[in-house]
Amino acid sequence: MQDGDFKALKIDQGRMMDSLHSICSFGTGKRWGSAPTETGMSRLALSDSDKQARDWFVDTTTALGCAINLDAMGNIFAVRPGRQSGLATFAGSHLDTQPSGGRYDGILGILAGIEMLRVLEDHHIETEFPVGVVNWTNEEGARFPISMVSSGVWAEDIPLARAHNLKEVGGGKATVKSELERIGYLGTMPASYKSMPMAAHFELHIEQGPILETERQKVGVVHGVQAYRWFTVEVQGRDAHTGTTPLANRADAMLLAARLITHAHRLATTHSAMAATGILTLTPGSTNTIPGTVRFALDVRAPADATVDAMEADLKADFAALAAGENIGGLLDGSTPGKPLNISWQTDSVSPATLFHADCIAAVRAAAEAVTGDKGLVRDMTSGAGHDSVYASRRCPTSMIFVPSRNGVSHNPEEYTSPEDCAVGAEVLLQSVLRYDRLRSMGATGSG
Amino acid sequence: MQDGDFKALKIDQGRMMDSLHSICSFGTGKRWGSAPTETGMSRLALSDSDKQARDWFVDTTTALGCAINLDAMGNIFAVRPGRQSGLATFAGSHLDTQPSGGRYDGILGILAGIEMLRVLEDHHIETEFPVGVVNWTNEEGARFPISMVSSGVWAEDIPLARAHNLKEVGGGKATVKSELERIGYLGTMPASYKSMPMAAHFELHIEQGPILETERQKVGVVHGVQAYRWFTVEVQGRDAHTGTTPLANRADAMLLAARLITHAHRLATTHSAMAATGILTLTPGSTNTIPGTVRFALDVRAPADATVDAMEADLKADFAALAAGENIGGLLDGSTPGKPLNISWQTDSVSPATLFHADCIAAVRAAAEAVTGDKGLVRDMTSGAGHDSVYASRRCPTSMIFVPSRNGVSHNPEEYTSPEDCAVGAEVLLQSVLRYDRLRSMGATGSG
Ligand SMILES: [Zn+2]
Ligand SMILES: [Zn+2]
Repeated sequence: MQDGDFKALKIDQGRMMDSLHSICSFGTGKRWGSAPTETGMSRLALSDSDKQARDWFVDTTTALGCAINLDAMGNIFAVRPGRQSGLATFAGSHLDTQPSGGRYDGILGILAGIEMLRVLEDHHIETEFPVGVVNWTNEEGARFPISMVSSGVWAEDIPLARAHNLKEVGGGKATVKSELERIGYLGTMPASYKSMPMAAHFELHIEQGPILETERQKVGVVHGVQAYRWFTVEVQGRDAHTGTTPLANRADAMLLAARLITHAHRLATTHSAMAATGILTLTPGSTNTIPGTVRFALDVRAPADATVDAMEADLKADFAALAAGENIGGLLDGSTPGKPLNISWQTDSVSPATLFHADCIAAVRAAAEAVTGDKGLVRDMTSGAGHDSVYASRRCPTSMIFVPSRNGVSHNPEEYTSPEDCAVGAEVLLQSVLRYDRLRSMGATGSG
Repeated sequence: MQDGDFKALKIDQGRMMDSLHSICSFGTGKRWGSAPTETGMSRLALSDSDKQARDWFVDTTTALGCAINLDAMGNIFAVRPGRQSGLATFAGSHLDTQPSGGRYDGILGILAGIEMLRVLEDHHIETEFPVGVVNWTNEEGARFPISMVSSGVWAEDIPLARAHNLKEVGGGKATVKSELERIGYLGTMPASYKSMPMAAHFELHIEQGPILETERQKVGVVHGVQAYRWFTVEVQGRDAHTGTTPLANRADAMLLAARLITHAHRLATTHSAMAATGILTLTPGSTNTIPGTVRFALDVRAPADATVDAMEADLKADFAALAAGENIGGLLDGSTPGKPLNISWQTDSVSPATLFHADCIAAVRAAAEAVTGDKGLVRDMTSGAGHDSVYASRRCPTSMIFVPSRNGVSHNPEEYTSPEDCAVGAEVLLQSVLRYDRLRSMGATGSG
């Protein structure tokens, strides 16, 4: 295949979108508009509707000349042969959704992979090495409560037994393993990068954030996934009657928590990081009792681990100072000094920053510029959320492609990306895979 | 009775405390120390243990020469005859407790009333007009969820039917009326100040706050009860993913709520008022979702209604400005401007300031100075919490006497006032009632 050949390849937008909406009949969710496709999705991993989507995936890729490789986590690797044998370059994502999800998260990545196979078939193109599409099991973690669990097992970062024994949320008895068996997707191949190595992994995904839309850009070249750290902060003061306790005698845990949350946002601004509190509980919880105890979650994120380290250090020092009554950042200006309180920290989750592979990033950047014809429509990005590409990147060169999400909305029936934007993304995916395959054929990468 | 006579009267501290601890065997609560009396109380209104305490009250006051008047709310007015007929001057409080309450809240006021009757009997003292002790039903509002409900009915501020039909909290079927019938305390006399007028009402009560202890003073002369107003504030932003939503794109309801709570405290400081948040709920409530909705309670108090009015006006104006992104009080310094949010207010409860009667206040002040022998040990106070004296004061001259609460703790098993402090309070109560009776005999009051 000559250079000029693959750069001219176009995907068929109408065909891809028809297929996407057609497989959204498996597990249709909540209606949010009047058009036929204006419904969300509710296709929990390993449910009957997930089985239907999987069956379609297997039938379709088989008909397109692929061999199916099914592993012990139900990950399905469909591989189309190349001119020479070797590892396949994959497009991958997931067909499962949130219980109240949309039509694009995960699904677009798989459908764009299928469209890639169709374009190759249409033009009778033989790639240098095999290419493939992989559907990862239970990415969302919505039914079985570890997200990206199956790419995690593949990367050997999560033990198979732990994954197999995950029980469905809500008190049901089903496990990952029992459901894999029930729907006929418990493969005999070990779920491991050693049994099913990949030359590279490219994932097209909706941004799930507002940046591309706000900046009026079309493609995000994803350099990695930001680090995050989850904490629970407990503020310990003293319960007291709101009517009989003067301000100066209070150890008001809610007032201190309010100052801490206000301050965490300021520190995030200073560090160009992010901080948010999505859970807060107080006790005893009555209008006329000053709460003695407040517990709140703190979600801290930044593209680099060092930034999160610095945030954590500043948060811990400043929170302690505020609890002791120091006027950090003027927060105590105009206030009545009260009694000191205690703060304790618990680290709930640590997820280091992921950096994708330079070769894959370069392939996506070149493809995006070629497809859009305008560098101004392409931006470098760090993914805010986790994806299967995080685990994939630990065992093979990886990058991702983002396309705009309307209003930044995701995990919601109203999640939406226009057909044109989906098509641009799919074309960038196709071109990225072909560029990477070509790079390998020239011996310019370490893999293959 | 000559002036010199009653000023020399002493109460019997040992006798009063023995009686107090003895009737705490009815409804004993949680143990908090090793001494026999170091347990709390759990004597819910109209329970079997409340019936035992009531029976003791009736037997004891009858034996002390009182006539019993029982009304339709189970309020028990024990009246000791005077030299001439006329309305009685009352000492009053309540025998019911919180489910996890202490030995002093309410109980001390009744026991000091009984001790007053005993002292009068011991010295064969005939007051000018009758004097009495009243036990009000369900002051705490812990079992039947309106506090001070029976003095409220007596004052004709709460309809009898509403009070009778109150169901016990926790889903039980019992009502105030059914429980009054069950324990034999549904009186035939109407519950009304018209059927059972009082010449005056004096209430000895623990402070339930830290002021007397902090100031090393012994007696609070209570001039009234502060006003309070309860609000629910709802902050409406937008749910968003913590990982994919930049700070500038957020409408973070928890961050705004934190700023509002911080600011409410500052406004309270400015107005010499009080503000607190004892309830806060957020939705959807997950670590990695910026909450779109936060609802929180705001309890605002001040001695004067005008101060609460001014607080409310400032809170509403400043909260709206902060929601719109204005940098009120420097709260947004160093922050990332985000999207505007909406705020709505709901007023849940309005309780105007209560001002007690000058004659009763003067009687308490004179008695307190005489009993302590030191003006420095006596302070004027505004009650932070509501009491039956609030409703009593609407229909007759009223005042209260406060004694120190250790650590300001109340509604807790560890609530504690030393025997010496209890005795000082009881002696001030005795002297206040006798002074007021004398004042009436001189025709110096409007009542009697
Ligand atoms: Zn996804
Ligand atoms: Zn009380």
